[in-house]
Amino acid sequence: MTMISVGIVGATGYTGVELLRLLAAHPQAKVTVVTSRAEAGRQVAELFPNLRGHYDMAYSEPDVETLAACNVVFFATPHAAAMHMVPELIARNTRVVDLSADFRLQDVALWEKWYNVEHSCPDLIPQAVYGLPEQNRAKIKTAQLVAVAGCYPTSVQLALKPLLEAGIIETSGIIADCKSGVSGAGRGAKVGSLFCEAGDNFMAYGVAGHRHLPEIEQGLSCMAGADVKLTFVPHLTPMIRGIHSTIYAQLTEEADLQSVFESCYADEPFVDVMPEGVFPQTRSVRGSNTCRLSVIRPQGGNTVVIMAVEDNLVKGASGQAIQCMNLMLGLDESTGLNLPALLP
Amino acid sequence: MTMISVGIVGATGYTGVELLRLLAAHPQAKVTVVTSRAEAGRQVAELFPNLRGHYDMAYSEPDVETLAACNVVFFATPHAAAMHMVPELIARNTRVVDLSADFRLQDVALWEKWYNVEHSCPDLIPQAVYGLPEQNRAKIKTAQLVAVAGCYPTSVQLALKPLLEAGIIETSGIIADCKSGVSGAGRGAKVGSLFCEAGDNFMAYGVAGHRHLPEIEQGLSCMAGADVKLTFVPHLTPMIRGIHSTIYAQLTEEADLQSVFESCYADEPFVDVMPEGVFPQTRSVRGSNTCRLSVIRPQGGNTVVIMAVEDNLVKGASGQAIQCMNLMLGLDESTGLNLPALLP
Amino acid sequence: MTMISVGIVGATGYTGVELLRLLAAHPQAKVTVVTSRAEAGRQVAELFPNLRGHYDMAYSEPDVETLAACNVVFFATPHAAAMHMVPELIARNTRVVDLSADFRLQDVALWEKWYNVEHSCPDLIPQAVYGLPEQNRAKIKTAQLVAVAGCYPTSVQLALKPLLEAGIIETSGIIADCKSGVSGAGRGAKVGSLFCEAGDNFMAYGVAGHRHLPEIEQGLSCMAGADVKLTFVPHLTPMIRGIHSTIYAQLTEEADLQSVFESCYADEPFVDVMPEGVFPQTRSVRGSNTCRLSVIRPQGGNTVVIMAVEDNLVKGASGQAIQCMNLMLGLDESTGLNLPALLP
Amino acid sequence: MTMISVGIVGATGYTGVELLRLLAAHPQAKVTVVTSRAEAGRQVAELFPNLRGHYDMAYSEPDVETLAACNVVFFATPHAAAMHMVPELIARNTRVVDLSADFRLQDVALWEKWYNVEHSCPDLIPQAVYGLPEQNRAKIKTAQLVAVAGCYPTSVQLALKPLLEAGIIETSGIIADCKSGVSGAGRGAKVGSLFCEAGDNFMAYGVAGHRHLPEIEQGLSCMAGADVKLTFVPHLTPMIRGIHSTIYAQLTEEADLQSVFESCYADEPFVDVMPEGVFPQTRSVRGSNTCRLSVIRPQGGNTVVIMAVEDNLVKGASGQAIQCMNLMLGLDESTGLNLPALLP
Repeated sequence: MTMISVGIVGATGYTGVELLRLLAAHPQAKVTVVTSRAEAGRQVAELFPNLRGHYDMAYSEPDVETLAACNVVFFATPHAAAMHMVPELIARNTRVVDLSADFRLQDVALWEKWYNVEHSCPDLIPQAVYGLPEQNRAKIKTAQLVAVAGCYPTSVQLALKPLLEAGIIETSGIIADCKSGVSGAGRGAKVGSLFCEAGDNFMAYGVAGHRHLPEIEQGLSCMAGADVKLTFVPHLTPMIRGIHSTIYAQLTEEADLQSVFESCYADEPFVDVMPEGVFPQTRSVRGSNTCRLSVIRPQGGNTVVIMAVEDNLVKGASGQAIQCMNLMLGLDESTGLNLPALLP
Repeated sequence: MTMISVGIVGATGYTGVELLRLLAAHPQAKVTVVTSRAEAGRQVAELFPNLRGHYDMAYSEPDVETLAACNVVFFATPHAAAMHMVPELIARNTRVVDLSADFRLQDVALWEKWYNVEHSCPDLIPQAVYGLPEQNRAKIKTAQLVAVAGCYPTSVQLALKPLLEAGIIETSGIIADCKSGVSGAGRGAKVGSLFCEAGDNFMAYGVAGHRHLPEIEQGLSCMAGADVKLTFVPHLTPMIRGIHSTIYAQLTEEADLQSVFESCYADEPFVDVMPEGVFPQTRSVRGSNTCRLSVIRPQGGNTVVIMAVEDNLVKGASGQAIQCMNLMLGLDESTGLNLPALLP
Repeated sequence: MTMISVGIVGATGYTGVELLRLLAAHPQAKVTVVTSRAEAGRQVAELFPNLRGHYDMAYSEPDVETLAACNVVFFATPHAAAMHMVPELIARNTRVVDLSADFRLQDVALWEKWYNVEHSCPDLIPQAVYGLPEQNRAKIKTAQLVAVAGCYPTSVQLALKPLLEAGIIETSGIIADCKSGVSGAGRGAKVGSLFCEAGDNFMAYGVAGHRHLPEIEQGLSCMAGADVKLTFVPHLTPMIRGIHSTIYAQLTEEADLQSVFESCYADEPFVDVMPEGVFPQTRSVRGSNTCRLSVIRPQGGNTVVIMAVEDNLVKGASGQAIQCMNLMLGLDESTGLNLPALLP
Repeated sequence: MTMISVGIVGATGYTGVELLRLLAAHPQAKVTVVTSRAEAGRQVAELFPNLRGHYDMAYSEPDVETLAACNVVFFATPHAAAMHMVPELIARNTRVVDLSADFRLQDVALWEKWYNVEHSCPDLIPQAVYGLPEQNRAKIKTAQLVAVAGCYPTSVQLALKPLLEAGIIETSGIIADCKSGVSGAGRGAKVGSLFCEAGDNFMAYGVAGHRHLPEIEQGLSCMAGADVKLTFVPHLTPMIRGIHSTIYAQLTEEADLQSVFESCYADEPFVDVMPEGVFPQTRSVRGSNTCRLSVIRPQGGNTVVIMAVEDNLVKGASGQAIQCMNLMLGLDESTGLNLPALLP
């Protein structure tokens, strides 16, 4: 069994340390390069003491040659960073898994509007495959560049996919009321992310417009084969990990919703449809790559409610990235990702 | 200045201790009786150490004569308890403020269906005034029996009142996605309320049907002058106090939403409309009787989003009960309730 | 009743907002100036939404003339800031209550060693009164400059005062194992104070030497009339407010410890000795100015254990500062500080 | 590779679900029986949704024959339960790993005094090996009955072992100030463990005497070859998992403390001595079997301070139990236990 050599660019944030944690348990991959301009020279385990004994390596300055020598390179960078280095790696035939937003939107103008920066390599966008395996498994297997789906978008898309594909809900008027743990805001030192600000508090944010909205609409439209518009309201909830999305849509015809969901996801290793009447809890996926879903039609009305939970750092980021890597490299899709969540 | 004598029935739960905390700062009320069958004989401050130095009194067995001698009696009991004692107090002309659900629904059959028990004094229900001062101020002033609005219902009704009264939203298809801190589940020893179960976790519950649904629909219908139906999904969020309700409705005509809200609540001491574009946080009302609201129309679409925060134990229960008491007894409505929230 | 006019310098941190919260409930004081270089021009309630409706005022640039016109000026600044402005206010006969460390240590050299900066007005230090009312009540009444005791030092000194004054413990080998909520680290944007770093985590810090050590030793030595040395280990615990100090000392003679504590604090409005065998909880003082103490001698051995809890932002900072102000201005010491803690 | 068949008695609490979580990742063990009188017939994954997809098995009534057929049986029961069933399993040559306290104390009278119940099989106690691999590795390898060390005792013993074996501290006057997450109190529905009681709160408990005290003293005395007495004060801190023990002892001679610790634990797979001056955080071991230690001598005095962190459910219970199982069955000691902690 050959080991896959892995490079990680920008591994000082939460998705970076989560890649390192998960890859430490991956039997066929080995991290060989970890880059960070800010922390170059410093031991990885000094920054993240949970990795002591698992990684004896230091951050290095990002260097294209070194990275290109890896079988696969993950970008765990803020947006508008990967796009400057990815072209050189693609040119050298290195596979790239980008956890940032740089290659998620196929419409460059839309991307530039929402991210407020000019895209530096728009010509690469068409070949980027959107990294949601449940939707794009075949394409991911042959992709050289994967743009891993965002955290909120993953939960909302997996929640609506069965209904949109069955064509039994209105494609307008959908509401996604999403709640995220604070790690979604990253490891940056911001007042709003302080324990004494985000703790014991609940609030909405980005109600006027959040960057994940166009990504979600692109994905849902693709599933529906028609334009889908939704109202998306993200909230911050005082927990470290986890996203809970509660989604409301209008049914257009009668259907056995539980069956629709169960048959849609019967063969998916990381989507779990809960038994009828049981609702998912974020802690049931803490640290795991599973997305759990429930569907219900309260009071027998026309409004269908779907609940989706995931760990925003795993299925919403680093776990899904590794799932994509497994597919790209011909490994079993679940390799290294089959551990139960940490509960309590 | 005469002091109002206050009795509290069932003051061993969180709404009970909150009544005691707030009344300790009330300049014109004095708690003279606190009853509890389970804790009779025990000092109040032994159970709730925050009250040491503020209350030197013990719980007593509930006794009608003693309670009837109070100017006002609060019931901080589970549902289906107050209804057994209230008639005797009403007969003796004692004013009653019931924090439980026993007199909230005017439709007895509906109440009996949702609470699954026969109502013991249905004849008293018509004279009970629903304790939401922003809606029923005049009636509360002359009421002998007030049924304080529930925690979720208060936030949802205050959020929708301006729009329903202005007649600018559809009265069907409304969605209330509500999130509550764990104190809403009470002080009972239940596995689901344990720190290790409810902590670091987010989940929906009661999606199929929650007892606050008919209460909310009754209140909204009253505001709209027409039947209002909504989808209500409550969630549990890992914080102690606070409710955040995110409400979605469909606009039927153009309007300056910010003005609609500001003029509706211009004279309300405990409803605060946030500046346009600023969203409320639950911690901004922790321990205070204020409900803060924001209204927004994301992307300029037809869906209006209203956000409402309150402290479920204050404006959602004990603070609102005292606000009602102030009105019933001819005091300034804000007496004893004017303190800022605890932040951080 | 004349209102005392209050100025606050640097009111953008947690002790600043806590001063504002507490003074909003003070019947004889009114905040007239709030300064902040960084936030000048911005409304106070914009930064701290819990103050909406309570303060309609903006931060201004610090200005000596304006501040000197106040009856009392609080400094809620980081260390080494107050010392630059205090002399001018003292010269103008304005009373000053400094919540920072600038005037706490009588030994200038020691201060300069621990704070690693030259003191700009060492000549003022001798007239500064250490702001621990239980120890220095008489001096505070006539002081023009009060250096409010630090958060850890308040709890440790109040815990040991009865034993040191009774002369029944060894003055060496004392251990103070202290645990603080995260608000003790301030509102600065630091990675270590993030929700995802400080949450669900417990750690010691500053074990090699913390700036509160010399302050504690100075205070204890004063109580003992002899040099006291202790080992002080502060820890960070995942809660917002509260300090719990567990203190270990060696008894030198037999004594009824419960009586020693109760008689020492019999007349203190803000020190509460718990009944024998009952231990204090930080939440019992959340938002209140009370320090609660327990004393016990486990297994009847020679080691005495004292537990002390306080709200680090109230009795450990802003509440104690107001207590000092009340004393300095001839008001009842408890004015505005008599509210029960928020529980739950 | 044959799979070891594992039975678990009483797997409805937190140590039980943690055994199931860890064993799901163990390549050489398979859980074949899970018993619970209260939950017999119910699916394991219904109670613990993190196990969905990992266990398709139901709880059964405890039955000696079925359990005796396993290679090893874990007891994750409250105290005074295992002792009634263990003798029958021992008689049938089944290996037993008891996570409860029933066989931890070699002095039966002492056990009966602290646990306030008569021991039902005192004759088995002498053959029970105390399950702390760092102390008893050889004996565990050949044991049929292992009494896994308790959570607090593991951290305190590992912290003091290097110093006691080196003979460089006083064996009296040791202080162990320990802080535990709330999961240490178990999954029982108790008011004190509620989110709204244990959350945002810090308190000491069991100061007069905690059942882990005699266990710790027995272990330390064994290490020292002399009677060791200590003062042990446990505290509850608002986090789910984790113990942080801060230990104070008096040095009797000069030594390079860092070297003493590093050489003591050089070959231990699950004890990690932090670099000098770096202190351990509980989150660095969340979900992992590692105990991290720091040692320091503040201000160069005679008091040595040792800090130890562990996950109370892993190294403090279920992880250590599996470590013992690995030793008893001749597997590599680390099998199934080598995953990094979950951070953040």
